[in-house]
Amino acid sequence: MDLVDEIREILGADAVSISPEDLDRYGRDNTEDFVFYPQVVVKPETVEAISSLLSWCNEHRIPVTARGAGTGLSGASLPIHGGVLLSMEKFNKILSIDVQNMQATVEPGVINDIFRDEVESHGLFYPPDPASKGSCFLGGNIAHNSGGPKAVKYGVTKDYVLNLEVVLPNGEIIWTGADTVKNSTGYNLTQLMVGSEGTLGIVTKIVFRLIAKPKHSLLLWANVAQATDACKAVSKIMQSGVVPSGMELMERKGIDLSCNQLSLTNPLTNGSNAALLIEVDGNNMDQLYDDCASIGEDLAQFGIEEVLFADSAEQKENWWKIRRSIGEVVKNHSVYKEEDTVVKRSHLADLMAGVKEIGARYGFESVCYGHAGDGNLHVNILKNELTDEEWEGAHLENGIREIFRLCKSLGGTISGEHGIGYVQRKYMNEMFSDFHLNLMKEIKKAFDPNGIMNPGKIFE
Amino acid sequence: MDLVDEIREILGADAVSISPEDLDRYGRDNTEDFVFYPQVVVKPETVEAISSLLSWCNEHRIPVTARGAGTGLSGASLPIHGGVLLSMEKFNKILSIDVQNMQATVEPGVINDIFRDEVESHGLFYPPDPASKGSCFLGGNIAHNSGGPKAVKYGVTKDYVLNLEVVLPNGEIIWTGADTVKNSTGYNLTQLMVGSEGTLGIVTKIVFRLIAKPKHSLLLWANVAQATDACKAVSKIMQSGVVPSGMELMERKGIDLSCNQLSLTNPLTNGSNAALLIEVDGNNMDQLYDDCASIGEDLAQFGIEEVLFADSAEQKENWWKIRRSIGEVVKNHSVYKEEDTVVKRSHLADLMAGVKEIGARYGFESVCYGHAGDGNLHVNILKNELTDEEWEGAHLENGIREIFRLCKSLGGTISGEHGIGYVQRKYMNEMFSDFHLNLMKEIKKAFDPNGIMNPGKIFE
Repeated sequence: MDLVDEIREILGADAVSISPEDLDRYGRDNTEDFVFYPQVVVKPETVEAISSLLSWCNEHRIPVTARGAGTGLSGASLPIHGGVLLSMEKFNKILSIDVQNMQATVEPGVINDIFRDEVESHGLFYPPDPASKGSCFLGGNIAHNSGGPKAVKYGVTKDYVLNLEVVLPNGEIIWTGADTVKNSTGYNLTQLMVGSEGTLGIVTKIVFRLIAKPKHSLLLWANVAQATDACKAVSKIMQSGVVPSGMELMERKGIDLSCNQLSLTNPLTNGSNAALLIEVDGNNMDQLYDDCASIGEDLAQFGIEEVLFADSAEQKENWWKIRRSIGEVVKNHSVYKEEDTVVKRSHLADLMAGVKEIGARYGFESVCYGHAGDGNLHVNILKNELTDEEWEGAHLENGIREIFRLCKSLGGTISGEHGIGYVQRKYMNEMFSDFHLNLMKEIKKAFDPNGIMNPGKIFE
Repeated sequence: MDLVDEIREILGADAVSISPEDLDRYGRDNTEDFVFYPQVVVKPETVEAISSLLSWCNEHRIPVTARGAGTGLSGASLPIHGGVLLSMEKFNKILSIDVQNMQATVEPGVINDIFRDEVESHGLFYPPDPASKGSCFLGGNIAHNSGGPKAVKYGVTKDYVLNLEVVLPNGEIIWTGADTVKNSTGYNLTQLMVGSEGTLGIVTKIVFRLIAKPKHSLLLWANVAQATDACKAVSKIMQSGVVPSGMELMERKGIDLSCNQLSLTNPLTNGSNAALLIEVDGNNMDQLYDDCASIGEDLAQFGIEEVLFADSAEQKENWWKIRRSIGEVVKNHSVYKEEDTVVKRSHLADLMAGVKEIGARYGFESVCYGHAGDGNLHVNILKNELTDEEWEGAHLENGIREIFRLCKSLGGTISGEHGIGYVQRKYMNEMFSDFHLNLMKEIKKAFDPNGIMNPGKIFE
């Protein structure tokens, strides 16, 4: 019997596809224009089915690549070595919302926004909201330790994960922790799973902790002459004691492209090359107005005087849409590569200046935007006039290496929230020694001795 | 040359001791009355010295047990297999406080309170404050993922660790992460180190994130007829949206012993068998009074009407002293064993009732107290009339197993903040399957193939 027949036997024919459309669709994610066809696409519905599948694949050394919604930007869900593409789309149930303990148990195929809306209907709050929140799966958020704008106040995905049900390659099913905020019982396998990009095991249930939903929010849009001034202002605001629930930086090009695409009024004025989008939230409106006044004073110190208030829910939503769409519109505008740099917040202006200086030397344009409050800057590099050879070869790679070395020298690292996956793995040696990388590989071996779980990701 | 001479050669004679006083002092920690003599006590001063030491011990298969201040309650720093006792007491420097980025870099031998005071002098806040905060080391807090009263609002040690410098058994020195809040760059070795109790490597530098210091706090003492009512009230308060910065439960016996020992006025009245100590903090006093009013209403619903306000800084400090001293005074009062149970918060009353019921069946008295807001209950079991055979043998062990099974069935685990160390390792099979325990052991092997790092801890 061949592989596909065997897997049909294990999962049932309905859960298995080798249609050309599926092989193509599941061979792509949102990373550049890569496509790698799997041998077979599977969509199991139970943890037991995944256990049987992994156990068989482990025995026969068949690569298994898990996939959420395919919104990833590092190529972690691309089946680069073929084998089985394991779509988690049928694991789409919110299993329970425990209001009393402020916890929820969900399957990994639930869409981020659907989960956030559901918990909000119970007066609770799940903060992590990546730009793709309308389509990305919570399982993918776990795999990449996703962040989003609210991370500056509320932290990232890892800060909300209490416990995970995981299927290991040999078919064993474990719970990594307990449903408690405090836990000092052996190694923290929960946090080891978060951000492991499907290379250790398959997450089949997630227990999240939740917090109380803040009642109000205010949103500011500040036009800025120079992006580096915005970076300095951000650092000042954070020192003041005000903790915004969003502090986003956008360069003009991203804003212009986004407003055009969405047919929205562009808040940028002529003399401005960038903007800050700043949100505060809480339960006391007076406090929020005070926070905004304090933010306004800090901005003014850096010559930032054009500050607009969103005066309706619609305007808030539109401004956030402009921000959230930038990645996608830049992708539609040009062949591009996206880097997910992160540094100590106070070094953001240095990073920004360095990226532009490196770009000038290597002849590439970049559109920068991202989570300024976290020091997390997305750098979209446009192909423009670069030749295919420069774009795919050592030329651009060297430029990107320079950016990553700069990140490291500024206390940062090469990915803040997108993960390493396929496209950044060759740069891991900028962050880690061979010894350190081998240590990570040995940990992978403890989980996955036969190397079937998403091979070729994170590490070369 | 013998072991001691070799180590003198590596570290210098001043850093090495085999005096009977040192072997005795460093052979004990704060766990029951255990003592295990090491072959040698060392107090190196540099990371390079630790690297050379570990590399030599690794080559010669000599056990190395790291020790902070020796305040641990699970015996993690007891050198049960002899070998080298590595005291981190010379690593006692706060290396930098980065106000702009709200971070600090410290050595692991800094005392928790000294660090907290220092960051507060910069307007910043490091919340984790275990009961032993006046003497415990930050490195020990990392090793055990320590909590403390403020965890209910602010989380535990792991929530503040960004990056660690670690010496591995082969002498390699790595930084586990980056100095950023966002990080999706390979496996999270930072969180794997936190709570690993010295079994993977030696932490030599810590980068903590800090938050803004809240300006005000209020403290309530509520007398309660029955502890189980207090548990129910706690669950209600947390659901109201108020998030206290402390929510401590104490049974009468602990309070009585503590007040006697400290010569402090006992706030408990005759009809009360327990008390809650509840703190709120923030920047807006009106908000804090509103929070207290809301808490008062919730307490009243459970018949808890005797609620006292601390009306001076001294009274606040005294009430906290009563709470913090309970562990120590119970230890002075009787031979005891301390369990660090944790369950879903809403199940705390069930846990409490279950502990008493199990105690009645096995004939042991228990003094319960702890962090009710986290579902984290310390259960101090008193020897009283139990025979030595019952106390050390299968009788009591079976009773403790029943308590831990109850914890697991209530969504919890066997240690919330004290760690597993030496005394709880035999109960790990209540939480984890053999497969799961072996997976943890394989992870240890990736770090420590020769098994020299604190052997015999966490696992049997």
